[in-house]
Amino acid sequence: MKEALRKHIEEVVPLTDEQFDIVFSYFRPKKLQKKDFLVKQGDSVNCEYFVVSGLVKAFYTDDEGKDHIMQFAMENWWVTDYQALLHKTPAQLDIDCLEDTKLLCITLEDKDKLCAALHKMEYFFRKKSNSGYVALQRRILSLLNNDAKERYEQFMSLYPSLYQRVSKTLIAAYLGVTRETLSRLA
Amino acid sequence: MKEALRKHIEEVVPLTDEQFDIVFSYFRPKKLQKKDFLVKQGDSVNCEYFVVSGLVKAFYTDDEGKDHIMQFAMENWWVTDYQALLHKTPAQLDIDCLEDTKLLCITLEDKDKLCAALHKMEYFFRKKSNSGYVALQRRILSLLNNDAKERYEQFMSLYPSLYQRVSKTLIAAYLGVTRETLSRLA
Repeated sequence: MKEALRKHIEEVVPLTDEQFDIVFSYFRPKKLQKKDFLVKQGDSVNCEYFVVSGLVKAFYTDDEGKDHIMQFAMENWWVTDYQALLHKTPAQLDIDCLEDTKLLCITLEDKDKLCAALHKMEYFFRKKSNSGYVALQRRILSLLNNDAKERYEQFMSLYPSLYQRVSKTLIAAYLGVTRETLSRLA
Repeated sequence: MKEALRKHIEEVVPLTDEQFDIVFSYFRPKKLQKKDFLVKQGDSVNCEYFVVSGLVKAFYTDDEGKDHIMQFAMENWWVTDYQALLHKTPAQLDIDCLEDTKLLCITLEDKDKLCAALHKMEYFFRKKSNSGYVALQRRILSLLNNDAKERYEQFMSLYPSLYQRVSKTLIAAYLGVTRETLSRLA
């Protein structure tokens, strides 16, 4: 677990052994099995999660019982219900495991403390947030602009390894197209 | 201009006069008139912009000549083509002025230098980026989940002052609904 997190951070900022020990002391490990829930709609959310291994999905169930997928997260991705975490509101999303999953959790408070203690980590998290912002803008443009075929092709080209691990039904719920439409494309 | 930026930053972190002078030295002012372009598709993008007064829109024109609005930005909002800025790729978006607009510009390099010089500013920009991320997630959920009426009502309730200043045609291009659909709602 330690190595995965260190490698991930060091893609952005180098850390000494001592610095990484400080970083790691703010995280605690969590192990879940396939189909377990990490967050349930209505929960209060205190943590952000780094996926060490496995795969989860964060999704919203609408009034008609239809699921819409906000995010997948596999190795080296960060996930939580960010709105609930940052605004201290009840979770709007469920997050469950599509595979057995190992995570590292950090609370919002501890993340702020870590960033205050190590300026490098504030830099790291700023850069990660910026990259995430760009990815979401790209997705919005794709939702506004592209037809189902283009969305599907973009998904395959951006996330080829995810595409291998996720069912077509879930991909459809992520792309905002019907399962039937996707079947004609896939 | 100085006061607007200072007030905006101090909503997140307090600054001494000396610190703010450092911050402000990294920005340069820019004045544009209604209909002027801040960024043109294909441009290289080096700056992020803070809107002091006025209103701009960032939009993508698709192959059929249809505009999709990525973002509006009015007083106290930040705007640029973030993908182009961060990935150093040609701008995919146009950004133009819906009103006469005053901005403060900071280059990506200077932003990094400022954040390195003043840890507080790294904190500030991390928090702003996190808030932006949450807003984009909310918009994605709205695009996946809500029908046109709900999207329109959410827009009005989230951005009442923007709603007053932007034409229905542009709101439709932001919400991803047709002008005709919006007319039936508005």
